[in-house]
Amino acid sequence: MQKTVKELAQLVQGTVCGNGEVVIEETRGLEQASPNAITFAIGDYVEYVSQCKAGAVIVEKEVPNVSIPQIIVDNAKVAFAQILELFHPPVVVPRTIHETAIIGENVTIGKNVAIGAYCVINDNAVIGDNVTIHPYVYIGHNTRIGEDSAIYAGAIVHENCSLGKRVVLRAKAVIGGEGFGFATENGVHTHIPQVGNVVLEDDVEVGSCSCIDNATMGSTLVRRGTKIDNLVHLGHNVEIGEDCFLIAQVGIAGSTKCGNHVIFAGQTGCTGHITIGDNVTFAGKTGIVGNVPSNGLYAGYPMRPHKEWLKLSAYESRLPDMAKTIKQLQKEVEALKAQLKER
Amino acid sequence: MQKTVKELAQLVQGTVCGNGEVVIEETRGLEQASPNAITFAIGDYVEYVSQCKAGAVIVEKEVPNVSIPQIIVDNAKVAFAQILELFHPPVVVPRTIHETAIIGENVTIGKNVAIGAYCVINDNAVIGDNVTIHPYVYIGHNTRIGEDSAIYAGAIVHENCSLGKRVVLRAKAVIGGEGFGFATENGVHTHIPQVGNVVLEDDVEVGSCSCIDNATMGSTLVRRGTKIDNLVHLGHNVEIGEDCFLIAQVGIAGSTKCGNHVIFAGQTGCTGHITIGDNVTFAGKTGIVGNVPSNGLYAGYPMRPHKEWLKLSAYESRLPDMAKTIKQLQKEVEALKAQLKER
Amino acid sequence: MQKTVKELAQLVQGTVCGNGEVVIEETRGLEQASPNAITFAIGDYVEYVSQCKAGAVIVEKEVPNVSIPQIIVDNAKVAFAQILELFHPPVVVPRTIHETAIIGENVTIGKNVAIGAYCVINDNAVIGDNVTIHPYVYIGHNTRIGEDSAIYAGAIVHENCSLGKRVVLRAKAVIGGEGFGFATENGVHTHIPQVGNVVLEDDVEVGSCSCIDNATMGSTLVRRGTKIDNLVHLGHNVEIGEDCFLIAQVGIAGSTKCGNHVIFAGQTGCTGHITIGDNVTFAGKTGIVGNVPSNGLYAGYPMRPHKEWLKLSAYESRLPDMAKTIKQLQKEVEALKAQLKER
Repeated sequence: MQKTVKELAQLVQGTVCGNGEVVIEETRGLEQASPNAITFAIGDYVEYVSQCKAGAVIVEKEVPNVSIPQIIVDNAKVAFAQILELFHPPVVVPRTIHETAIIGENVTIGKNVAIGAYCVINDNAVIGDNVTIHPYVYIGHNTRIGEDSAIYAGAIVHENCSLGKRVVLRAKAVIGGEGFGFATENGVHTHIPQVGNVVLEDDVEVGSCSCIDNATMGSTLVRRGTKIDNLVHLGHNVEIGEDCFLIAQVGIAGSTKCGNHVIFAGQTGCTGHITIGDNVTFAGKTGIVGNVPSNGLYAGYPMRPHKEWLKLSAYESRLPDMAKTIKQLQKEVEALKAQLKER
Repeated sequence: MQKTVKELAQLVQGTVCGNGEVVIEETRGLEQASPNAITFAIGDYVEYVSQCKAGAVIVEKEVPNVSIPQIIVDNAKVAFAQILELFHPPVVVPRTIHETAIIGENVTIGKNVAIGAYCVINDNAVIGDNVTIHPYVYIGHNTRIGEDSAIYAGAIVHENCSLGKRVVLRAKAVIGGEGFGFATENGVHTHIPQVGNVVLEDDVEVGSCSCIDNATMGSTLVRRGTKIDNLVHLGHNVEIGEDCFLIAQVGIAGSTKCGNHVIFAGQTGCTGHITIGDNVTFAGKTGIVGNVPSNGLYAGYPMRPHKEWLKLSAYESRLPDMAKTIKQLQKEVEALKAQLKER
Repeated sequence: MQKTVKELAQLVQGTVCGNGEVVIEETRGLEQASPNAITFAIGDYVEYVSQCKAGAVIVEKEVPNVSIPQIIVDNAKVAFAQILELFHPPVVVPRTIHETAIIGENVTIGKNVAIGAYCVINDNAVIGDNVTIHPYVYIGHNTRIGEDSAIYAGAIVHENCSLGKRVVLRAKAVIGGEGFGFATENGVHTHIPQVGNVVLEDDVEVGSCSCIDNATMGSTLVRRGTKIDNLVHLGHNVEIGEDCFLIAQVGIAGSTKCGNHVIFAGQTGCTGHITIGDNVTFAGKTGIVGNVPSNGLYAGYPMRPHKEWLKLSAYESRLPDMAKTIKQLQKEVEALKAQLKER
């Protein structure tokens, strides 16, 4: 594909600064970009634009003293995403139901749906318009998949679950597996049937091999726009707010509820039955052991405010010196005591 | 479904305290329960029973000053589980072998077995009576599945493994994958064939996307009644005792052996080739780096007794103050020394 | 199978010390070995050879005062691996394409390839000679699998990826899922298409349920000989060097690059956009938060040199005593000040 800088600027509703007739043939990262490629720069990377060999660069503010054409936009990442899609159209999935797909009784299938090879869609499932279901996807009884959703190969949605519009499940995600609930008598654990479901609201994304258990009763709930990375675990009756990020290998124990715009960085773990407010960020590997109010940045285990955690880490490094100083002080105090006694 | 409180009390062998004629139509959590629902309360939740709007509540001791009928039982969780099953019977799986299931040579299949669509059961496998195998389950050569077991969609049991009675494998669990064993020569790693198997005894449960590797030689072993949550890893030749809990994202490295009634809370990691006694509990995210005797509660990394870990965490918070005090003491001692010198 | 010690020594190019006519019928661990079994001993285990009941033992140096025959080799683990393969030949997979496998258009399939039941191989894929593909494997459009590779049940390789020779993917591994990349505007996250791929070089192994995301642009790369355990996550544009070990549940965030011969022990987490040198080892659960130079052993979170981490952990244990001593010193200094004032 060949597009001029001007054509691309039109697509992303940006302003050209420089030669709009330069021809672009591909997309590249800032460092790797050659004269036929378009790239983008934000934040600290803007200072490298002047050395960049690209055919054009998308930025959010004109960068001075740059010879290559710039496209100025409000959000460079969003604009670049549009251009990526233009140059790399995704593989076309035929809008048919593959002959090997097994469709149960009373299943409702919307318009323009693709269902891949070896899928199993159980009784009473409802599949919305424009949904794309890749091979080996299992949809349980009574489960609803909202329109424009995409479910990748081997993902599983157990019975009675409800997925909103534009939900994305990556390969091997497991939604609605039975929650880990037991009654223990004389040390022996008896499974308690988990009869609730999982509700994923519109625009939720769940990564590969992530597991969201169903609720004991009621719903395990992920609200609109929240994005979940790979290998994440959500226990029964967890509730996650809107527009959150759960990065890879995060685990949230049962019945914990969190607000909107919360970021759990990778490998963070959270105990059950607690409440987390809005706009909280947890650094990687945080161990959350109690309620957390809105607004804040935390780290460590046990969790502390990030600033305090950094400070204490620095003080820890000084522990050997502190111990040495204390010993020295003890000696000096003993010496002083002896001196005083002598007199 | 409609049942009177009296009928439900009979089912769970409990005693009614209050009006046994109240009609119950559904199950709910304590907070969400409406007058047509039954709920239960244990531990700290008992104090909320007086405010509860349920039609009835299951408790372990009569709660005074409560207007709604109570059903008194020995174990409220177990009783409620029975009622949950009554009101929410699981989806019925037909007791047939789906026409798309591929069954190898010399496979033994018991009575009343269900094998779902697109399963692959390899040569010489043995499937016990009443086993339920959901779609896409792969059973390796010579593997045995004990009676009344349930294997959910997409789970894999590699060759030569042995599962006891009433074993549950959740979706995408992988049992008997080859252990991570290599010989390294001049920095290059050569795989060592892992020729052992995995043995899961009766009543073991393994969560979604959990991986239990086979043994180098002999067996990786999980004993009777142990329950394993999602995304857990057990390395080759690990042995886990009876009635243990391994919560989500726990990892146990190769050849570690642990006793009975051990609880590994979420994201706990354990080094290989160590021994853990009976009745030990590890808090979330514990890093276990050496042998652990029976009976105890541990936390932190490196692991410490939980009480000590809590105490040290509190002392860590005081580090900046301690450093300040030390500096102050140094000044004062210097002053004292100077004073004494002067005289 | 029956083999004399002499015959086995020939196979592994070792020297017999003792009776070479002893007949061996099986392989066992050092502790479990009976007189018809061969075993091996390295490192600390050599001291147990004298008590061992095996028919023969493989060692790297003659052990004195041992009655059973010894086979002396350069690398006992490698030699034992050869004997394990002799006594435990793997299940034979028929070199055919199963009739239920769905093969797309323009797919190139080499000689002696096995493709199992219910596989889906998409358009333009290239499968090298002697590749073994087990059931339910999904190969995306344009993806290349190098010769002699083995892909276990249910693994997924998304489109445009490239796997070298002798690559092993264990069950349910997911290669080339879309990276976790979003542009955030007014708190709402929009997915950025990830149009790159994953490249796994020769002799790479990836464990069960491990997820390696594709690159935003360019390639997520794992170099020759690196071995990855179960449930590991590699984010978009990560680059891992040659002959590394990534043990179970490790997570590496996007765009991080690491050198050769690096060992990430279990549950280690690594932040994105950093660089790690060669020959570095990270202990279990390390939290890597910045660039790491070549050669070194690290632990803890925040990460420190392992020796320092151990030392600080020991000092932490002394914190309560230190606090007590400081208090005592304060008292004594006050007393001294008072004494001096009096005079």
